[in-house]
Amino acid sequence: MSLLVIGSVAFDALETPFGKTDKIIGGAATYISLAASYSTKPVNLVAVVGGDFPQSDILTLEEHGVNVEGLQIKPDEKSFFWSGKYNKDLNSRETITTELNVLGSFDPIIPDAYQDCKYLMLGNLAPQVQRLVVQRLVNRPKLIVLDTMNFWMDSAPDELLATIEMVDVLSINDEEARQLSGEYSLVKAARKILALGPKFLIIKKGEHGALLFHKNKVFYAPALPLEEVFDPTGAGDTFAGGFIGHIAATDDCSFENLKRAVIHGSAMASFCVEKFGTERLLKLTQEEIEAREAQFEELVKVQPASVVA
Amino acid sequence: MSLLVIGSVAFDALETPFGKTDKIIGGAATYISLAASYSTKPVNLVAVVGGDFPQSDILTLEEHGVNVEGLQIKPDEKSFFWSGKYNKDLNSRETITTELNVLGSFDPIIPDAYQDCKYLMLGNLAPQVQRLVVQRLVNRPKLIVLDTMNFWMDSAPDELLATIEMVDVLSINDEEARQLSGEYSLVKAARKILALGPKFLIIKKGEHGALLFHKNKVFYAPALPLEEVFDPTGAGDTFAGGFIGHIAATDDCSFENLKRAVIHGSAMASFCVEKFGTERLLKLTQEEIEAREAQFEELVKVQPASVVA
Repeated sequence: MSLLVIGSVAFDALETPFGKTDKIIGGAATYISLAASYSTKPVNLVAVVGGDFPQSDILTLEEHGVNVEGLQIKPDEKSFFWSGKYNKDLNSRETITTELNVLGSFDPIIPDAYQDCKYLMLGNLAPQVQRLVVQRLVNRPKLIVLDTMNFWMDSAPDELLATIEMVDVLSINDEEARQLSGEYSLVKAARKILALGPKFLIIKKGEHGALLFHKNKVFYAPALPLEEVFDPTGAGDTFAGGFIGHIAATDDCSFENLKRAVIHGSAMASFCVEKFGTERLLKLTQEEIEAREAQFEELVKVQPASVVA
Repeated sequence: MSLLVIGSVAFDALETPFGKTDKIIGGAATYISLAASYSTKPVNLVAVVGGDFPQSDILTLEEHGVNVEGLQIKPDEKSFFWSGKYNKDLNSRETITTELNVLGSFDPIIPDAYQDCKYLMLGNLAPQVQRLVVQRLVNRPKLIVLDTMNFWMDSAPDELLATIEMVDVLSINDEEARQLSGEYSLVKAARKILALGPKFLIIKKGEHGALLFHKNKVFYAPALPLEEVFDPTGAGDTFAGGFIGHIAATDDCSFENLKRAVIHGSAMASFCVEKFGTERLLKLTQEEIEAREAQFEELVKVQPASVVA
């Protein structure tokens, strides 16, 4: 089922305790599209880059089934650039540089061929830009997923609330859920956030997994404890890409299927962190993905009490 | 099956963002014994208190099926006292007072009637005292569980390692696992710690749940997201008490049954934090416990993929 992804396609320069990179391909929509492409194709991308963006990276996206008709190229401008350095435990990072460049004036133009989109993934961007995408679609998609971050809660709270109101699924991390709701308890936070509009709330907790809230129900998908975490960049976006990719592939928006989508997204994110940037996401096989999902299911499996007793 | 519990029985004075208490009954062995008593009776207690310890609190333990024959009372001395204040997020706390009192010279005498013990829970105490209990038992118990903390890793590392070597299950939190092993990855930490002697390692992660490691296998029991956390004091000990209580009641030391013991312990701990001190643990019903365990199982439940697709 047709999937539309909007978000940044950009350059990142990363430093972790295990090494550093020069400018490499990054951006929310890059990770989302690559992760989703293992479930559903094509992934219809809307994004903007500058003339400095390598044709080879665009080809890489195309090779993974990403439709780049909606990727605007501004020859005389520069691509969005972010550089950051992770602390020793990889749980926190500091931003060294943020250069908005082309993203500062991004006008998300939807190609006509994308208008039949049934699933829409709004990757992290200014909320007014995310909203514009929804408004420009002739028919409302069956499911809209929104990823955002604390930066917009601080700088554009009203715009963000207006965007949150329009979507079906909101995906944020635990600190952001607490900030957005003003509640420390995630149960209370979820209740308040679901009252803002979304039918589903995903709270990402990094190495501790992810929670999916719907009405009064909650599902907890723990993260697989990993031998090695190399670079957490893009993990949240990869999670979102795996999540929406699974839903688009199965065309099923039930709570039960969204649980499986959370597990699939978690599995995809667990690959992402094993190497720098998008490296690991470029070379996955279906067998690897299925084996990893099986590990996630094994992780929480218990025999029924009657069998044990 | 007979369960022997050793640890502190003490006074705590607590302050959380929601209120404060005067001196109330606390101590690792108190929480462990109460939690275990919902699964198995009697709980044979070895501990020491001073003349200041109220007879009414001892009666309360007895009413819950705790055998206090091994509870030494030193009439002219004072009970162990700890006071602490929790920070706003309840994830960290500062110690205001620690008065060792009777605990400074604690000689763990095992009553003859306790010698048939099959399950031994070593609550947090000086590791040399914990080891003495094992040495004083004529027959080695079927399963020995050790709870300890970072304080002993800093102050008595050799004594602690000698004690860890003797036990079957070690229970510590994630920071302690990292400190003990020198590894940030919990998978690597677990491998190193299991090489020290224990067959099983439990890593407690507070609101993020608990991990159980055994050989190359891992089980993740997430914690139930709670509406309200009132006072985290004793949660780890309550977890340990529920864990060993379930094992003693079922007399089954398989990995599969230890998983269920982790879920039961997590459920017991989720009650503990709902009120100050031991208050919630004193008035539980089997129906409440079973309903809570069902919530823990529901939390991670997914339909098989074939049903969804």
